[in-house]
Amino acid sequence: MAVSAIDQLIQLFARLPGLGPRSARRAVLFLIKRRESLMLPLAQALGDAADAMKSCDICGNIDVSDPCSVCIDTRRDVSVICVVEDVADLWALERTASFSGLYHVLGGTLSALDGIGPEDLAIAGLVARSESDKIAEVILATSATVDGQTTAHYVAERLAACGVKISRLAHGVPVGGELDYLDDGTLSAALKARRAI
Amino acid sequence: MAVSAIDQLIQLFARLPGLGPRSARRAVLFLIKRRESLMLPLAQALGDAADAMKSCDICGNIDVSDPCSVCIDTRRDVSVICVVEDVADLWALERTASFSGLYHVLGGTLSALDGIGPEDLAIAGLVARSESDKIAEVILATSATVDGQTTAHYVAERLAACGVKISRLAHGVPVGGELDYLDDGTLSAALKARRAI
Repeated sequence: MAVSAIDQLIQLFARLPGLGPRSARRAVLFLIKRRESLMLPLAQALGDAADAMKSCDICGNIDVSDPCSVCIDTRRDVSVICVVEDVADLWALERTASFSGLYHVLGGTLSALDGIGPEDLAIAGLVARSESDKIAEVILATSATVDGQTTAHYVAERLAACGVKISRLAHGVPVGGELDYLDDGTLSAALKARRAI
Repeated sequence: MAVSAIDQLIQLFARLPGLGPRSARRAVLFLIKRRESLMLPLAQALGDAADAMKSCDICGNIDVSDPCSVCIDTRRDVSVICVVEDVADLWALERTASFSGLYHVLGGTLSALDGIGPEDLAIAGLVARSESDKIAEVILATSATVDGQTTAHYVAERLAACGVKISRLAHGVPVGGELDYLDDGTLSAALKARRAI
């Protein structure tokens, strides 16, 4: 029997992160029962987004315009670049609404195990941007993992000659976090970086 | 700022069962990185399925043809109808490949709380089908919940005049289930329905 359009849809949904075959079936049945209000709009939105989305040539953000809405926003502080691993990290920082500078998406982290070297990441573009006189500070906002920190160290070395201030995100107790449940590394980092009240 | 095509897509995904705003964003980023291999095929499959899907006039199944592939399958036993609450239940039974009769989808259960009465379910259609001479048995495969069992009792009463054999699914210990973790109701049902080996 040929795979029907519905089975094919379930198989595609099952490939999304967080969905397995069972939840994909549930999602597809949910869609089928809401043909006009959700299924057709979703098909339309998927096609529209696929057509409209662009990768920003300057920072690597994904948006519906190139340069992206962050890079063309004249209200932003063009003297600071925040370096992130991934577009998801950029979006996470934007949601906090506490950073008004520009971004640079590396596209991953250095990883000897996965064979990802400096040439696989958007480091050359970052160095070129940082050489501009306008840039005063580069914030390295890579993950606090071994790979993330290795990448940050490497990027910092590459930027050393640019004469920009280089900083990294603070390590410490997460807001709302209980000391008892924190790992030793975070606790000792928080202790070392303690601040006078 | 107008909602971009990407934000709109995230909002639509977040309405699916099992996905929240965070996992919807993750799914959309996953799609965006797989534009050709997943995003466009998914848009296409959604549109295709929305166009192709039909509700079977006979049993209420959702399929790409009407009557559905179950109802038109000449290899199936047309003397048995299995009554289920929902299309998902029909699909679940089909996956077991252990039932070769026909189905009837009620479209829910009777529920005084939610104001769902007999006229809201496909009971009249079931009675009409059962009055046919061809039908020998109706299996009531509603859920083992209060609403499901109430519905089964009501349907059984409505079918009493049709002269068909009426049965229900066995209650008992789930295959692979440990006695220690079973609720008392299931255990006593399994004890009452014990079988000689």
